[in-house]
Amino acid sequence: MGVVVELNDGAVRVKNPTLRDVAQLAGVSIATASKALNGRDHVHPETRTRVHEAARLISFTPNALAQGLIAGQTGTVGLITGDLDGRFSIPILMGAEDAFGTGKMSVFLCDARGDAIREQYHLQALLSRRVDGLIVVGSTTNPRPSLGSDLPIPVVYAYAPSLDASDISLVADNEQAGSDAAAHLVKRGRIRIAHITGDAGYLAATDRATGVEIELARSGLTLVGGEARYGSWTEDWGRRATQQLLAEHPDVDAILCGSDQIARGALDILREAGKIVPDEIAVMGFDNWEIFTSGARPALTSVDMNLETLGRAAARRLFAAIDGDHSGGIQKLPCRVVVRETT
Amino acid sequence: MGVVVELNDGAVRVKNPTLRDVAQLAGVSIATASKALNGRDHVHPETRTRVHEAARLISFTPNALAQGLIAGQTGTVGLITGDLDGRFSIPILMGAEDAFGTGKMSVFLCDARGDAIREQYHLQALLSRRVDGLIVVGSTTNPRPSLGSDLPIPVVYAYAPSLDASDISLVADNEQAGSDAAAHLVKRGRIRIAHITGDAGYLAATDRATGVEIELARSGLTLVGGEARYGSWTEDWGRRATQQLLAEHPDVDAILCGSDQIARGALDILREAGKIVPDEIAVMGFDNWEIFTSGARPALTSVDMNLETLGRAAARRLFAAIDGDHSGGIQKLPCRVVVRETT
Repeated sequence: MGVVVELNDGAVRVKNPTLRDVAQLAGVSIATASKALNGRDHVHPETRTRVHEAARLISFTPNALAQGLIAGQTGTVGLITGDLDGRFSIPILMGAEDAFGTGKMSVFLCDARGDAIREQYHLQALLSRRVDGLIVVGSTTNPRPSLGSDLPIPVVYAYAPSLDASDISLVADNEQAGSDAAAHLVKRGRIRIAHITGDAGYLAATDRATGVEIELARSGLTLVGGEARYGSWTEDWGRRATQQLLAEHPDVDAILCGSDQIARGALDILREAGKIVPDEIAVMGFDNWEIFTSGARPALTSVDMNLETLGRAAARRLFAAIDGDHSGGIQKLPCRVVVRETT
Repeated sequence: MGVVVELNDGAVRVKNPTLRDVAQLAGVSIATASKALNGRDHVHPETRTRVHEAARLISFTPNALAQGLIAGQTGTVGLITGDLDGRFSIPILMGAEDAFGTGKMSVFLCDARGDAIREQYHLQALLSRRVDGLIVVGSTTNPRPSLGSDLPIPVVYAYAPSLDASDISLVADNEQAGSDAAAHLVKRGRIRIAHITGDAGYLAATDRATGVEIELARSGLTLVGGEARYGSWTEDWGRRATQQLLAEHPDVDAILCGSDQIARGALDILREAGKIVPDEIAVMGFDNWEIFTSGARPALTSVDMNLETLGRAAARRLFAAIDGDHSGGIQKLPCRVVVRETT
């Protein structure tokens, strides 16, 4: 039995309460208390209520740890991220929590900070804690090394795919997203569309640009200046590239930007140049990062990568893998255009 | 013994390896293998290396879960946050990871999303997983309800304090931060300082404003317009308030903003009004949120809330509480001014 502690106000509290304490308080057998709490067998509703009330009174919670050891599953998963500001990993965590059911599965979040040694430390710790599976969130969308195929538990790679094609990877479909964005601008009657984007070393940048060009070609269009303008994912690059673009092609009627930050830089320069958005020129971002889209003048149309949906899908694939479905490969999930005032 | 699996390349792999497998492979007794792996007793260095090599070969990791059950501690803590975008919780998580030692303590991250019922679900799940302690990260800096004093494990409240003064709370010292910011502007020779800040319903806003006014009074100064200008934590409010300020007090020589977003709005309007920053007017933000400070024109001076330090301190206080030191109260940690080009 748990230790009975008398509180200042004369009330009695049970420290480290056990199932026996609950049963005693509810006036039932231990077996009945157990059945009422785990819900697996039939117990009279009134008895069930009494047992739950007793458990609540003495703050008794079943020992999931011991149950897990017996069942061979712990109800825990590890989420290893390399994402320093949580911008990608938190929505993915939220999606996973939703798919798992709040509180049903608990998630260890480890931040490897882009450091392979730190990642290994976290991995070993998670294995020793007997997590049922792992979700690995990349720090960029670029393919990343596999954790290996000899792990005792399934792994799902989210946001960035694994370099090993036999691993399970779920990523946003950046090429399709580029096409959808271009299609949105074409539908708005734009015909002289420029594309200012980030570092060409990121697949997200080149995949999106490919999608844009494919979609424009469908309408017989090409990018203003003949190609995408690669730089960095910053407002500063958005400003510099837009200045150059206006000097070279003053008749441009839409700028599709590879990130919301680049789009904010573009909007700054257009405002200073006296160009009216969207009447004279449309602007569109990527990522749909609310802090940048809502603060923009006017509010910025953007492409949402649906990261919560990605997190939910990753959790479901992990469940399937835990249940034995190890079919690997890269699954691409659709993005969506969120229309605001700039288009 | 674990299940021996023959791989395609003829190599042999042990599935669900046990300590017995490690001992057999290393040619030592189970007791020696255990000693070599847990490092608690003296084992010849050569033997230790052989055992570790054997464990590595068959991917054996000690079962931290079973060890935890025996030791009465699990080496896990729960971090419950209400912070939707991870802006505050991720730096706090990183600080906690550093204090715990990477991989030594694993952190369950749960996102309650500002929902008390969801928080209770997470809390019950964490208790059932027998975490050694909890860190609760508020979604704002405002005091939040206590999880109660009858929990079987210690709780540390970080970022937002608990309403219960006997709980352990660690927060950023917003009043001191306001004073430090004002002192920085005064040191730069500014004498007509305005304060544009967020929602007056946030203690962070009113505490910072109090600190600013105390520090200005020390130099015989008062705020331009006589008081802080409260609004919302947005760029849009920064723009509107700055327009109004310039109309009412065209001779203002510094704007201290309650957030980096407000400061970005202020910079927009000053640029459009032809005011040169920092020559004619200085601008300063709060939070030191890199995506806003580095993209600003010019780069924005800001106050950093030292959230990683806060996370490390919270982890240390939690360790102390696990070891029996339950002395409660609100501990305030210092912030720091990060000087860039706007002051």
